[in-house]
Amino acid sequence: MSAKFITFEGIDGSGKSTQSRLLAEHLTQNGAQNHLTREPGGAPGAEDIRRLLVEGDPDRWSAETEILLFTAARRDHLERTIQPKLTQGITVISDRFADSTRVYQGATRGDLRGVVDTLHSTMIKKEPDLTFVIDMDPKMALSRGLARGSGEDRFEDMGLTFQEKLRSGFQALCQEFPDRCRLINGNRAPDDVAADIRNHFHAFSV
Amino acid sequence: MSAKFITFEGIDGSGKSTQSRLLAEHLTQNGAQNHLTREPGGAPGAEDIRRLLVEGDPDRWSAETEILLFTAARRDHLERTIQPKLTQGITVISDRFADSTRVYQGATRGDLRGVVDTLHSTMIKKEPDLTFVIDMDPKMALSRGLARGSGEDRFEDMGLTFQEKLRSGFQALCQEFPDRCRLINGNRAPDDVAADIRNHFHAFSV
Repeated sequence: MSAKFITFEGIDGSGKSTQSRLLAEHLTQNGAQNHLTREPGGAPGAEDIRRLLVEGDPDRWSAETEILLFTAARRDHLERTIQPKLTQGITVISDRFADSTRVYQGATRGDLRGVVDTLHSTMIKKEPDLTFVIDMDPKMALSRGLARGSGEDRFEDMGLTFQEKLRSGFQALCQEFPDRCRLINGNRAPDDVAADIRNHFHAFSV
Repeated sequence: MSAKFITFEGIDGSGKSTQSRLLAEHLTQNGAQNHLTREPGGAPGAEDIRRLLVEGDPDRWSAETEILLFTAARRDHLERTIQPKLTQGITVISDRFADSTRVYQGATRGDLRGVVDTLHSTMIKKEPDLTFVIDMDPKMALSRGLARGSGEDRFEDMGLTFQEKLRSGFQALCQEFPDRCRLINGNRAPDDVAADIRNHFHAFSV
Protein backbone atom coordinates (compact mmCIF):
# COMPACT_ATOMS: atom_id res chain seq x y z
CA MET A 1 0.00 0.00 0.00
CA SER A 2 1.44 3.41 -0.96
CA ALA A 3 1.32 6.37 1.43
CA LYS A 4 -2.01 8.16 1.46
CA PHE A 5 -3.07 11.69 2.40
CA ILE A 6 -6.18 11.38 4.60
CA THR A 7 -8.12 14.30 6.08
CA PHE A 8 -10.88 14.61 8.68
CA GLU A 9 -13.45 17.37 8.42
CA GLY A 10 -16.60 18.35 10.27
CA ILE A 11 -17.99 20.90 12.69
CA ASP A 12 -16.31 21.54 16.05
CA GLY A 13 -17.12 18.85 18.59
CA SER A 14 -17.91 16.26 15.89
CA GLY A 15 -15.08 14.02 17.06
CA LYS A 16 -12.65 14.72 14.19
CA SER A 17 -9.61 14.88 16.45
CA THR A 18 -10.53 11.68 18.31
CA GLN A 19 -11.23 9.83 15.07
CA SER A 20 -7.99 11.08 13.46
CA ARG A 21 -6.07 9.70 16.43
CA LEU A 22 -7.95 6.39 16.44
CA LEU A 23 -7.23 5.83 12.74
CA ALA A 24 -3.53 6.69 13.29
CA GLU A 25 -3.38 4.20 16.18
CA HIS A 26 -5.06 1.54 14.06
CA LEU A 27 -2.51 2.05 11.25
CA THR A 28 0.39 1.91 13.71
CA GLN A 29 -0.97 -1.34 15.19
CA ASN A 30 -1.03 -2.73 11.65
CA GLY A 31 2.55 -1.67 11.00
CA ALA A 32 1.66 1.13 8.59
CA GLN A 33 3.86 4.19 9.08
CA ASN A 34 1.77 7.32 9.59
CA HIS A 35 1.97 10.90 10.77
CA LEU A 36 -0.88 12.66 12.57
CA THR A 37 -1.14 16.41 12.01
CA ARG A 38 -3.70 19.24 12.08
CA GLU A 39 -4.63 22.63 10.63
CA PRO A 40 -4.16 25.47 10.99
CA GLY A 41 -0.59 24.53 11.95
CA GLY A 42 1.23 21.25 11.53
CA ALA A 43 4.71 22.71 10.88
CA PRO A 44 6.73 25.19 13.00
CA GLY A 45 6.05 28.21 10.77
CA ALA A 46 2.42 27.22 10.23
CA GLU A 47 1.97 26.99 14.01
CA ASP A 48 3.25 30.59 14.32
CA ILE A 49 0.65 31.67 11.74
CA ARG A 50 -1.97 29.65 13.66
CA ARG A 51 -1.35 31.82 16.72
CA LEU A 52 -2.15 34.93 14.64
CA LEU A 53 -5.41 33.27 13.57
CA VAL A 54 -6.70 31.92 16.88
CA GLU A 55 -5.47 34.51 19.39
CA GLY A 56 -6.69 38.04 19.98
CA ASP A 57 -9.86 39.90 19.01
CA PRO A 58 -12.19 37.87 16.74
CA ASP A 59 -12.41 40.94 14.45
CA ARG A 60 -8.64 41.20 14.24
CA TRP A 61 -8.66 40.13 10.57
CA SER A 62 -11.08 40.63 7.70
CA ALA A 63 -12.32 37.48 5.94
CA GLU A 64 -9.93 38.19 3.06
CA THR A 65 -6.84 38.56 5.25
CA GLU A 66 -7.89 35.46 7.20
CA ILE A 67 -8.07 33.40 3.97
CA LEU A 68 -4.57 34.59 3.03
CA LEU A 69 -3.21 33.60 6.45
CA PHE A 70 -4.91 30.19 6.33
CA THR A 71 -3.46 29.65 2.85
CA ALA A 72 0.03 30.72 4.00
CA ALA A 73 -0.17 28.27 6.93
CA ARG A 74 -1.44 25.53 4.60
CA ARG A 75 1.35 26.08 2.08
CA ASP A 76 3.94 25.81 4.86
CA HIS A 77 2.24 22.71 6.29
CA LEU A 78 2.15 21.12 2.83
CA GLU A 79 5.82 21.88 2.02
CA ARG A 80 7.36 21.17 5.39
CA THR A 81 5.27 18.27 6.67
CA ILE A 82 2.72 16.70 4.32
CA GLN A 83 4.76 16.36 1.10
CA PRO A 84 8.02 15.23 2.80
CA LYS A 85 6.16 12.54 4.79
CA LEU A 86 4.31 11.26 1.71
CA THR A 87 7.60 11.18 -0.22
CA GLN A 88 9.06 9.02 2.56
CA GLY A 89 6.16 6.62 2.16
CA ILE A 90 4.44 7.74 5.37
CA THR A 91 0.67 8.12 5.34
CA VAL A 92 -0.46 11.56 6.58
CA ILE A 93 -3.65 12.02 8.59
CA SER A 94 -4.66 15.66 9.00
CA ASP A 95 -7.34 17.02 11.32
CA ARG A 96 -8.71 19.65 8.86
CA PHE A 97 -7.31 20.81 5.51
CA ALA A 98 -8.55 22.98 2.61
CA ASP A 99 -12.17 21.78 2.94
CA SER A 100 -12.44 23.61 6.28
CA THR A 101 -11.64 26.90 4.57
CA ARG A 102 -14.15 26.15 1.81
CA VAL A 103 -16.93 25.34 4.26
CA TYR A 104 -16.26 27.96 6.98
CA GLN A 105 -15.86 30.78 4.46
CA GLY A 106 -18.89 29.48 2.58
CA ALA A 107 -20.96 29.75 5.76
CA THR A 108 -19.74 33.26 6.64
CA ARG A 109 -18.81 34.93 3.33
CA GLY A 110 -20.17 32.82 0.48
CA ASP A 111 -19.20 35.57 -1.97
CA LEU A 112 -15.54 34.71 -1.33
CA ARG A 113 -15.73 31.15 -2.65
CA GLY A 114 -14.10 32.28 -5.92
CA VAL A 115 -11.23 33.84 -3.96
CA VAL A 116 -10.82 30.66 -1.87
CA ASP A 117 -10.72 28.57 -5.07
CA THR A 118 -8.22 30.88 -6.81
CA LEU A 119 -5.87 30.79 -3.82
CA HIS A 120 -6.16 27.01 -3.59
CA SER A 121 -5.54 26.39 -7.29
CA THR A 122 -2.63 28.86 -7.37
CA MET A 123 -0.84 28.16 -4.08
CA ILE A 124 -1.89 24.70 -2.81
CA LYS A 125 -2.88 22.50 -5.78
CA LYS A 126 -3.31 19.46 -3.58
CA GLU A 127 -6.36 17.44 -2.55
CA PRO A 128 -6.47 14.58 -0.06
CA ASP A 129 -6.75 11.01 -1.33
CA LEU A 130 -9.57 10.39 1.11
CA THR A 131 -11.61 12.73 3.33
CA PHE A 132 -13.80 11.64 6.23
CA VAL A 133 -16.55 14.18 6.86
CA ILE A 134 -18.00 13.48 10.28
CA ASP A 135 -21.65 14.47 10.21
CA MET A 136 -23.26 15.23 13.55
CA ASP A 137 -26.28 16.91 15.09
CA PRO A 138 -24.97 20.42 15.86
CA LYS A 139 -26.66 20.39 19.30
CA MET A 140 -24.60 17.36 20.28
CA ALA A 141 -21.44 18.72 18.63
CA LEU A 142 -21.80 22.10 20.26
CA SER A 143 -22.19 20.65 23.73
CA ARG A 144 -19.13 18.44 23.15
CA GLY A 145 -17.15 21.40 21.79
CA LEU A 146 -18.01 23.61 24.73
CA ALA A 147 -17.38 20.78 27.19
CA ARG A 148 -13.88 20.41 25.77
CA GLY A 149 -13.25 23.96 26.99
CA SER A 150 -10.75 24.90 24.30
CA GLY A 151 -10.75 28.70 24.38
CA GLU A 152 -8.80 28.73 21.14
CA ASP A 153 -11.37 28.11 18.52
CA ARG A 154 -13.38 31.18 17.83
CA PHE A 155 -15.76 29.23 15.63
CA GLU A 156 -17.11 27.54 18.71
CA ASP A 157 -18.41 30.86 19.99
CA MET A 158 -20.66 31.46 17.03
CA GLY A 159 -23.63 29.40 18.18
CA LEU A 160 -26.03 26.77 17.02
CA THR A 161 -27.41 28.43 13.89
CA PHE A 162 -23.92 28.86 12.56
CA GLN A 163 -23.05 25.23 13.36
CA GLU A 164 -26.14 24.13 11.43
CA LYS A 165 -25.01 26.18 8.45
CA LEU A 166 -21.60 24.53 8.69
CA ARG A 167 -23.14 21.06 8.85
CA SER A 168 -25.00 21.77 5.60
CA GLY A 169 -21.75 23.06 4.10
CA PHE A 170 -19.91 19.87 4.97
CA GLN A 171 -22.76 17.76 3.57
CA ALA A 172 -22.61 19.81 0.34
CA LEU A 173 -18.86 19.23 0.20
CA CYS A 174 -19.50 15.48 -0.08
CA GLN A 175 -21.73 16.18 -3.09
CA GLU A 176 -19.03 18.38 -4.65
CA PHE A 177 -16.18 15.89 -4.18
CA PRO A 178 -17.90 12.48 -4.10
CA ASP A 179 -14.82 10.52 -5.20
CA ARG A 180 -12.72 11.33 -2.16
CA CYS A 181 -15.30 12.25 0.51
CA ARG A 182 -17.02 9.81 2.85
CA LEU A 183 -19.89 11.18 4.95
CA ILE A 184 -19.68 9.43 8.31
CA ASN A 185 -22.57 9.38 10.77
CA GLY A 186 -20.99 10.80 13.94
CA ASN A 187 -24.13 10.48 16.10
CA ARG A 188 -22.90 7.15 17.45
CA ALA A 189 -20.47 5.83 20.04
CA PRO A 190 -16.88 6.78 19.08
CA ASP A 191 -15.86 3.11 18.73
CA ASP A 192 -18.68 2.49 16.22
CA VAL A 193 -17.68 5.58 14.25
CA ALA A 194 -14.04 4.41 14.29
CA ALA A 195 -14.98 0.94 13.01
CA ASP A 196 -16.94 2.53 10.15
CA ILE A 197 -13.95 4.73 9.25
CA ARG A 198 -11.56 1.75 9.32
CA ASN A 199 -13.85 -0.15 6.94
CA HIS A 200 -14.00 2.76 4.51
CA PHE A 201 -10.23 3.19 4.74
CA HIS A 202 -9.48 -0.44 3.94
CA ALA A 203 -12.06 -0.54 1.14
CA PHE A 204 -10.34 2.49 -0.38
CA SER A 205 -6.76 1.28 0.12
CA VAL A 206 -7.01 -2.22 -1.30
CA MET B 1 -6.46 68.62 -4.24
CA SER B 2 -7.96 65.21 -3.45
CA ALA B 3 -6.12 62.72 -1.26
CA LYS B 4 -3.47 60.73 -3.12
CA PHE B 5 -1.83 57.37 -2.52
CA ILE B 6 1.93 57.85 -2.98
CA THR B 7 4.55 55.10 -2.66
CA PHE B 8 8.34 55.06 -2.50
CA GLU B 9 10.28 52.15 -3.91
CA GLY B 10 13.94 51.30 -4.44
CA ILE B 11 16.73 49.12 -3.13
CA ASP B 12 17.71 49.17 0.54
CA GLY B 13 19.80 52.19 1.42
CA SER B 14 18.47 54.22 -1.50
CA GLY B 15 16.97 56.81 0.83
CA LYS B 16 13.31 55.78 0.42
CA SER B 17 12.50 56.22 4.10
CA THR B 18 14.20 59.61 4.34
CA GLN B 19 12.50 60.83 1.18
CA SER B 20 9.07 59.53 2.31
CA ARG B 21 9.48 61.50 5.52
CA LEU B 22 10.69 64.65 3.74
CA LEU B 23 7.67 64.61 1.39
CA ALA B 24 5.32 64.09 4.36
CA GLU B 25 6.92 67.04 6.18
CA HIS B 26 6.64 69.19 3.06
CA LEU B 27 2.91 68.38 2.76
CA THR B 28 2.34 69.10 6.44
CA GLN B 29 4.11 72.47 6.09
CA ASN B 30 1.76 73.24 3.22
CA GLY B 31 -1.31 72.35 5.26
CA ALA B 32 -2.03 69.09 3.36
CA GLN B 33 -3.18 66.31 5.68
CA ASN B 34 -1.06 63.21 5.22
CA HIS B 35 -0.20 59.88 6.81
CA LEU B 36 3.24 58.28 6.57
CA THR B 37 3.32 54.49 6.63
CA ARG B 38 5.45 51.54 5.48
CA GLU B 39 5.43 47.91 4.38
CA PRO B 40 5.50 45.23 5.44
CA GLY B 41 3.38 46.54 8.31
CA GLY B 42 1.52 49.81 8.64
CA ALA B 43 -1.42 48.47 10.68
CA PRO B 44 -1.42 46.52 13.98
CA GLY B 45 -2.16 43.12 12.40
CA ALA B 46 0.16 43.78 9.48
CA GLU B 47 2.96 44.61 11.94
CA ASP B 48 2.42 41.21 13.60
CA ILE B 49 2.76 39.55 10.17
CA ARG B 50 5.87 41.69 9.53
CA ARG B 51 7.52 40.10 12.56
CA LEU B 52 6.98 36.64 11.05
CA LEU B 53 8.63 37.89 7.84
CA VAL B 54 11.67 39.70 9.19
CA GLU B 55 12.56 37.67 12.29
CA GLY B 56 14.08 34.21 12.52
CA ASP B 57 15.94 32.01 10.05
CA PRO B 58 16.07 33.47 6.49
CA ASP B 59 14.95 30.05 5.20
CA ARG B 60 12.02 30.01 7.56
CA TRP B 61 9.54 30.43 4.66
CA SER B 62 9.52 29.31 1.04
CA ALA B 63 9.11 32.02 -1.60
CA GLU B 64 5.46 30.98 -2.03
CA THR B 65 4.60 31.19 1.67
CA GLU B 66 6.46 34.50 1.89
CA ILE B 67 4.36 35.97 -0.96
CA LEU B 68 1.18 34.86 0.85
CA LEU B 69 2.32 36.50 4.09
CA PHE B 70 3.31 39.73 2.31
CA THR B 71 -0.10 39.76 0.60
CA ALA B 72 -1.90 39.14 3.92
CA ALA B 73 0.01 42.02 5.53
CA ARG B 74 -0.72 44.25 2.51
CA ARG B 75 -4.43 43.44 2.58
CA ASP B 76 -4.59 44.34 6.28
CA HIS B 77 -2.58 47.54 5.71
CA LEU B 78 -4.87 48.50 2.82
CA GLU B 79 -8.12 47.85 4.74
CA ARG B 80 -7.14 49.22 8.12
CA THR B 81 -4.89 52.16 7.20
CA ILE B 82 -4.61 53.15 3.53
CA GLN B 83 -8.28 53.06 2.45
CA PRO B 84 -9.68 54.66 5.63
CA LYS B 85 -7.16 57.53 5.44
CA LEU B 86 -7.87 58.14 1.74
CA THR B 87 -11.60 58.11 2.45
CA GLN B 88 -11.04 60.79 5.09
CA GLY B 89 -9.26 62.92 2.48
CA ILE B 90 -5.81 62.24 3.92
CA THR B 91 -2.94 61.61 1.49
CA VAL B 92 -1.08 58.37 2.25
CA ILE B 93 2.68 58.06 1.71
CA SER B 94 3.94 54.48 1.98
CA ASP B 95 7.57 53.37 2.17
CA ARG B 96 7.16 50.29 -0.11
CA PHE B 97 3.97 48.65 -1.45
CA ALA B 98 3.17 45.94 -4.03
CA ASP B 99 6.02 46.95 -6.36
CA SER B 100 8.53 45.71 -3.77
CA THR B 101 7.01 42.23 -3.95
CA ARG B 102 7.06 42.34 -7.76
CA VAL B 103 10.71 43.37 -7.90
CA TYR B 104 12.14 41.30 -5.02
CA GLN B 105 10.38 38.14 -6.12
CA GLY B 106 11.34 38.89 -9.73
CA ALA B 107 15.01 39.04 -8.68
CA THR B 108 14.88 35.82 -6.64
CA ARG B 109 12.13 33.70 -8.19
CA GLY B 110 11.16 35.19 -11.54
CA ASP B 111 9.00 32.13 -12.25
CA LEU B 112 6.60 33.32 -9.52
CA ARG B 113 5.65 36.58 -11.22
CA GLY B 114 2.36 35.02 -12.38
CA VAL B 115 1.58 33.99 -8.79
CA VAL B 116 2.42 37.49 -7.52
CA ASP B 117 0.13 39.02 -10.17
CA THR B 118 -2.73 36.61 -9.42
CA LEU B 119 -2.57 37.35 -5.69
CA HIS B 120 -2.44 41.09 -6.36
CA SER B 121 -5.36 41.11 -8.79
CA THR B 122 -7.46 38.84 -6.53
CA MET B 123 -6.70 40.22 -3.04
CA ILE B 124 -5.29 43.76 -3.37
CA LYS B 125 -6.63 45.35 -6.59
CA LYS B 126 -5.07 48.70 -5.77
CA GLU B 127 -2.22 50.65 -7.34
CA PRO B 128 -0.70 53.90 -6.07
CA ASP B 129 -1.56 57.16 -7.80
CA LEU B 130 2.14 58.00 -7.96
CA THR B 131 5.28 55.95 -7.25
CA PHE B 132 8.74 57.38 -6.72
CA VAL B 133 11.39 54.82 -7.63
CA ILE B 134 14.69 55.98 -6.17
CA ASP B 135 17.45 54.78 -8.45
CA MET B 136 20.90 54.51 -6.92
CA ASP B 137 24.28 52.93 -7.45
CA PRO B 138 24.04 49.68 -5.45
CA LYS B 139 27.54 50.18 -4.00
CA MET B 140 26.45 53.47 -2.44
CA ALA B 141 23.08 52.07 -1.40
CA LEU B 142 24.60 48.97 0.16
CA SER B 143 27.12 50.97 2.21
CA ARG B 144 24.27 53.24 3.39
CA GLY B 145 22.09 50.24 4.20
CA LEU B 146 24.78 48.50 6.21
CA ALA B 147 25.76 51.74 7.94
CA ARG B 148 22.18 52.09 9.13
CA GLY B 149 22.72 48.86 11.03
CA SER B 150 19.14 47.64 10.81
CA GLY B 151 19.45 43.93 11.49
CA GLU B 152 15.85 43.47 10.42
CA ASP B 153 15.99 43.47 6.70
CA ARG B 154 17.27 40.18 5.40
CA PHE B 155 17.51 41.58 1.87
CA GLU B 156 20.47 43.66 2.99
CA ASP B 157 22.47 40.52 3.64
CA MET B 158 22.24 39.29 0.09
CA GLY B 159 25.12 41.32 -1.35
CA LEU B 160 26.00 43.57 -4.21
CA THR B 161 25.11 41.31 -7.14
CA PHE B 162 21.62 40.89 -5.78
CA GLN B 163 21.26 44.64 -5.22
CA GLU B 164 22.25 45.21 -8.85
CA LYS B 165 19.59 42.76 -9.96
CA LEU B 166 17.05 44.63 -7.83
CA ARG B 167 18.12 47.97 -9.30
CA SER B 168 17.44 46.60 -12.81
CA GLY B 169 14.10 45.29 -11.57
CA PHE B 170 13.04 48.70 -10.26
CA GLN B 171 14.14 50.36 -13.52
CA ALA B 172 12.07 47.80 -15.46
CA LEU B 173 9.10 48.57 -13.19
CA CYS B 174 9.16 52.17 -14.45
CA GLN B 175 8.93 50.83 -18.00
CA GLU B 176 6.03 48.58 -17.03
CA PHE B 177 4.02 51.29 -15.22
CA PRO B 178 5.14 54.53 -16.88
CA ASP B 179 1.98 56.48 -16.01
CA ARG B 180 2.41 56.32 -12.27
CA CYS B 181 6.18 55.72 -11.82
CA ARG B 182 8.86 58.41 -11.64
CA LEU B 183 12.48 57.22 -11.73
CA ILE B 184 14.40 59.55 -9.42
CA ASN B 185 18.19 59.82 -9.49
CA GLY B 186 19.17 59.06 -5.89
CA ASN B 187 22.92 59.55 -6.39
CA ARG B 188 22.65 63.13 -5.16
CA ALA B 189 22.45 65.03 -1.89
CA PRO B 190 19.17 64.16 -0.09
CA ASP B 191 17.94 67.77 -0.31
CA ASP B 192 18.38 67.77 -4.10
CA VAL B 193 16.53 64.46 -4.37
CA ALA B 194 13.73 65.85 -2.16
CA ALA B 195 13.38 68.98 -4.32
CA ASP B 196 13.10 66.82 -7.44
CA ILE B 197 10.39 64.69 -5.78
CA ARG B 198 8.43 67.77 -4.66
CA ASN B 199 8.48 69.11 -8.24
CA HIS B 200 7.20 65.81 -9.63
CA PHE B 201 4.54 65.64 -6.91
CA HIS B 202 3.20 69.13 -7.64
CA ALA B 203 3.31 68.61 -11.40
CA PHE B 204 1.22 65.47 -10.87
CA SER B 205 -1.24 66.95 -8.37
CA VAL B 206 -2.21 70.13 -10.18
